[in-house]
Amino acid sequence: MRWLRYSLGTRTAYGILEGERVLDVRGDPFAGYEKTGQIHALSDVKIELPVVPGTFYEVGFNYPEHVREIAAKQGIEPNLPTQPDVGYRANSGLIAHGEAIVVPRDATDAIQYEGELVAVVGRTAKGLSEEDALSCLLGFTIGNDVSERSWQKSDKTLWRAKNTDTFAPMGPWIETGVGDLDELVTTVRVNGEVSSQFPTNAMLFGVAKFLSKITRYITLRPGDVLWMGTDGTSPNLSHGDVVDVEISGIGVLTNPIVKL
Amino acid sequence: MRWLRYSLGTRTAYGILEGERVLDVRGDPFAGYEKTGQIHALSDVKIELPVVPGTFYEVGFNYPEHVREIAAKQGIEPNLPTQPDVGYRANSGLIAHGEAIVVPRDATDAIQYEGELVAVVGRTAKGLSEEDALSCLLGFTIGNDVSERSWQKSDKTLWRAKNTDTFAPMGPWIETGVGDLDELVTTVRVNGEVSSQFPTNAMLFGVAKFLSKITRYITLRPGDVLWMGTDGTSPNLSHGDVVDVEISGIGVLTNPIVKL
Repeated sequence: MRWLRYSLGTRTAYGILEGERVLDVRGDPFAGYEKTGQIHALSDVKIELPVVPGTFYEVGFNYPEHVREIAAKQGIEPNLPTQPDVGYRANSGLIAHGEAIVVPRDATDAIQYEGELVAVVGRTAKGLSEEDALSCLLGFTIGNDVSERSWQKSDKTLWRAKNTDTFAPMGPWIETGVGDLDELVTTVRVNGEVSSQFPTNAMLFGVAKFLSKITRYITLRPGDVLWMGTDGTSPNLSHGDVVDVEISGIGVLTNPIVKL
Repeated sequence: MRWLRYSLGTRTAYGILEGERVLDVRGDPFAGYEKTGQIHALSDVKIELPVVPGTFYEVGFNYPEHVREIAAKQGIEPNLPTQPDVGYRANSGLIAHGEAIVVPRDATDAIQYEGELVAVVGRTAKGLSEEDALSCLLGFTIGNDVSERSWQKSDKTLWRAKNTDTFAPMGPWIETGVGDLDELVTTVRVNGEVSSQFPTNAMLFGVAKFLSKITRYITLRPGDVLWMGTDGTSPNLSHGDVVDVEISGIGVLTNPIVKL
């Protein structure tokens, strides 16, 4: 099942996406809903952020190849995490599928994508065992953790490198029936050409391990999101480039680059 | 003017605090309000979080003494920040005035307070000059950035050390008429005895500098909060201790420690 958050005229609502049809609902997938009977064509609505999270969790270094490639570029030894430590990011950077990634004038050319699996929490949860952890999820969506690599080096935190307005595209919808994570493949295309491809679940620490560790200390709430990190590296993106992040079985998140 | 968010029975609302009286309003200080004419005694209501932020910004090392004392304890050279780089924290850790700081069983004895000035954003703002920056604020409240120092060393991020459930008391209310920040004094008491005291504004980078830098890249929104860091160091806190963080002209934030 696919949950789309969309707007049409002045109304923003959730709908169930079936093929190219949006079945409108009253309510939402977290607190409960009922179908209104209204149906729209997907092409007639504006796709909105699939959820505005209460807390936006982000996993930093979670694919061995990514850690090694970043270290090699910086001329340092790769330092693989030994335990699942999560970080935080800002809602202020979030934009929906189709919206432009707007790069400030003082950014360098090192604007890069990071295609990521995003877990969406469906219910309040604390103290989850690893076996039971995925049961707290509503489903999965896709994130593009856009990064300015010079700011990532110069600043004490990632605030500007990864949280500048528009640097966190998320969507296009939430897929509740993903099934076996080991079968997913993440593919990133720039202007239609494949630029990165990796098994989505080739993570150092998987979704269940993170959810279990987090909820030993922290209560997760409906709508919280957990971005799971990326593999490989990205070319520098130019004005006018269009980036697709596709995860098989979920969908394609597409955003153009606009340099000011 | 003091904005109190409170609950009475099943209703949670904003009120204007005048002495010990709460003047109830419809609406809120961000989008607009009107007085309902209802008045409660402060002692009759439960004080709630003064705001649930959209984004929770936090300044890490912002007082020279704090940086030097932490470095001395770790046996390393103090490394003073050279530019205002903000970080992020999780709403999940927030609790109100009066609520208990609950320390997990596997925490060490190194549970410490950090008394902090908190700036509360009142309107949408981008591109603020330093001169104009404070104009985006509704007012100020108080934060206690409770920290588990062993996790602060062992984990790659601060997620557990500072964001465990209940580790972020904030309140008791928002003061809109603070005036000259240079006249404020922060005093922390443990069980009524003064444990730390410092000029609130003796910061490496002040509130206006941070707001101006952040809004070069990021849009601030009504209800966002910016915790400004702390000075000095704290003793280890024990089960049953009561911590007051007072900032002159704002109020006193009080929370007891409960060790599981």
